[in-house]
Amino acid sequence: MTMCSNISGNKPHVIVIGAGGVGVIAALSLFHCNKTEVSLVVRSDYDHVKVHGYKISSCDYGDLEGWKPHHLYKNVEHAIKDDPKRFYQYVLVTTKNIPDGPFQSRVPEIIRPIMENNLTYHIDKKCNILLIQNGIEIESDILTTFNKTTYNYNILSGIQIIGSTKIDKGVINQQGHEHLSVGSFDSSDQDSILAAKNFISYYLNEGFNSIEFDERVRYSRWKKLLYNAAINTTTALVGLDVPRALEFGKDKKSTEFGIFRPAMKEIVRIAEAEGIILEDKFIDFFVNCTRDLLFKPSMCVDVQKHQLMEIEVILGNPIKLAKKYGVETPVLEMLYNLLILVQCKLKEEKGLIVFDEKISRLIDH
Amino acid sequence: MTMCSNISGNKPHVIVIGAGGVGVIAALSLFHCNKTEVSLVVRSDYDHVKVHGYKISSCDYGDLEGWKPHHLYKNVEHAIKDDPKRFYQYVLVTTKNIPDGPFQSRVPEIIRPIMENNLTYHIDKKCNILLIQNGIEIESDILTTFNKTTYNYNILSGIQIIGSTKIDKGVINQQGHEHLSVGSFDSSDQDSILAAKNFISYYLNEGFNSIEFDERVRYSRWKKLLYNAAINTTTALVGLDVPRALEFGKDKKSTEFGIFRPAMKEIVRIAEAEGIILEDKFIDFFVNCTRDLLFKPSMCVDVQKHQLMEIEVILGNPIKLAKKYGVETPVLEMLYNLLILVQCKLKEEKGLIVFDEKISRLIDH
Repeated sequence: MTMCSNISGNKPHVIVIGAGGVGVIAALSLFHCNKTEVSLVVRSDYDHVKVHGYKISSCDYGDLEGWKPHHLYKNVEHAIKDDPKRFYQYVLVTTKNIPDGPFQSRVPEIIRPIMENNLTYHIDKKCNILLIQNGIEIESDILTTFNKTTYNYNILSGIQIIGSTKIDKGVINQQGHEHLSVGSFDSSDQDSILAAKNFISYYLNEGFNSIEFDERVRYSRWKKLLYNAAINTTTALVGLDVPRALEFGKDKKSTEFGIFRPAMKEIVRIAEAEGIILEDKFIDFFVNCTRDLLFKPSMCVDVQKHQLMEIEVILGNPIKLAKKYGVETPVLEMLYNLLILVQCKLKEEKGLIVFDEKISRLIDH
Repeated sequence: MTMCSNISGNKPHVIVIGAGGVGVIAALSLFHCNKTEVSLVVRSDYDHVKVHGYKISSCDYGDLEGWKPHHLYKNVEHAIKDDPKRFYQYVLVTTKNIPDGPFQSRVPEIIRPIMENNLTYHIDKKCNILLIQNGIEIESDILTTFNKTTYNYNILSGIQIIGSTKIDKGVINQQGHEHLSVGSFDSSDQDSILAAKNFISYYLNEGFNSIEFDERVRYSRWKKLLYNAAINTTTALVGLDVPRALEFGKDKKSTEFGIFRPAMKEIVRIAEAEGIILEDKFIDFFVNCTRDLLFKPSMCVDVQKHQLMEIEVILGNPIKLAKKYGVETPVLEMLYNLLILVQCKLKEEKGLIVFDEKISRLIDH
């Protein structure tokens, strides 16, 4: 199939920040639905995509060549500068969430230009921030940075299940059907719930993608953490795909029974302390769902690409909550204590931290 | 200083198997002491060393160029074939001890030609096997493979503290003073104790090296495991030197208090179950002894060189003993469960195990 640019000034605006496998397909879904005007912040690939558009091979939408959304920007400032009077009804953040990364790439700083611009020009309109990202408690940084009443926004949760990867500059390969769950972080906020449901109407392409309203965001995020806190983390430490990590265990069992399941049970107990019951069947499901897939989870890929991992939202935050609730998490803590060393190794490579070899000490900034 | 070859048929024979940083300096110490005739099994560097000898830069013995012991062999079979009637009073094994490695490179198989030859030609003489290697319970494999009465041997323990590395083909750099403790694995075996003491007289070079009799081999080995089971293992997993591993911890503390000390306390409790008391001061000592040294422990170096690690003698055996005694070792087990995955990754690289990507399964041999 082919698609042509389709600009209409009367449609509500949506901006997608982050143009990896998730972000580009999200922009494409919105564009295809044709109810919003779609801006995409592309960053590193901007110059390439501006000229050539995207080459997308999608199991949902077919093969596209030279595809572009309505607007392309190299960063959020660029989008604001291009049209400060334009109001983004939805701000989709699909970047990695790395609160321990460089200051300017933390989520509140990424969206700050939009938030401040809204304050100047659009204070009467309510903006909806939709975080399509991993982890738990990812809304907190935004809520503490931007007063909800002053900045007049809702904050929504998006959990994406999709096998989509940027395989080259401007080239996206989507192998797994897109399934997005959208809901309100605050399950008692009716306006936010309405905004989530409204978003679904902007996004659903019957017969192409799947999107559903998520009634229990916190539950869904704990559930997804079963996989990410246990399996994503372990594969990142040992540099193996999931089937190898399982099969290479002692008697082919120690990874499953000595790491994955105990780590998952700790997540179950933290969630339980919040009154959220994760059924045992999910542990079985997540242990097995990638057993036969030669698939390296995101943190494993990050380490191999020398990119920072989302360890704080995947492990740091659950462990902080566990401490608060008095839940013991020895397995998650070991994974965390080991992974922060790998994270710091990556940070040192990037010059984000400095280790002075003369005195064998980390230099505090 | 220079040394010249110094052959005497009347001296007792010693064979050193393994020509890394430890083995070559052991051969040099014996040679310098001049009370034994020294054979060295060189393996990979044989052709080079046969022609050029060793280039050694030693803090104990100075700079040597073209040094050779009395005999050089490319493997143990070669030594036996060269002179089957020669009796080796001491067999020093300084190779890595990797019982999960290839069959032919396991310690009992390495020494088998000597043991079988002794049975044929020297059954009246008692041979002394001295294992200068890391880990606990390393004597067991030999004792179960070779009946002690049939094969007529003692088994001795050597713990080497030395900063010596093979930095190139035939090039050894010894930066730390050599200190060797030698004793009998069986502390009630008087003949074995005598053999250990006798070895010291063959080895000690006053003013050059240090060697002492080890009255409590098991105690010494548990003590050294405090470092190896906790620190060596962790650095191997994260690929960092010790000061970075310490400094990169959360608040510069999580490595020391979340990994190193808890792991060491587990070793203390396993040893305690055997009636061996490791004083708390050793934990402080080992946590701090390499805090300021830009030093990567052996297992960390192994991973970076894509060589198999000594995980069974350093972690596998202590954990087995802990299970036998009913001691809980959650931290050591996590390190072990993670490191066997890295070990298997190395084994797959070497073709020692086969993972079938079509069925996502490890193929059993």
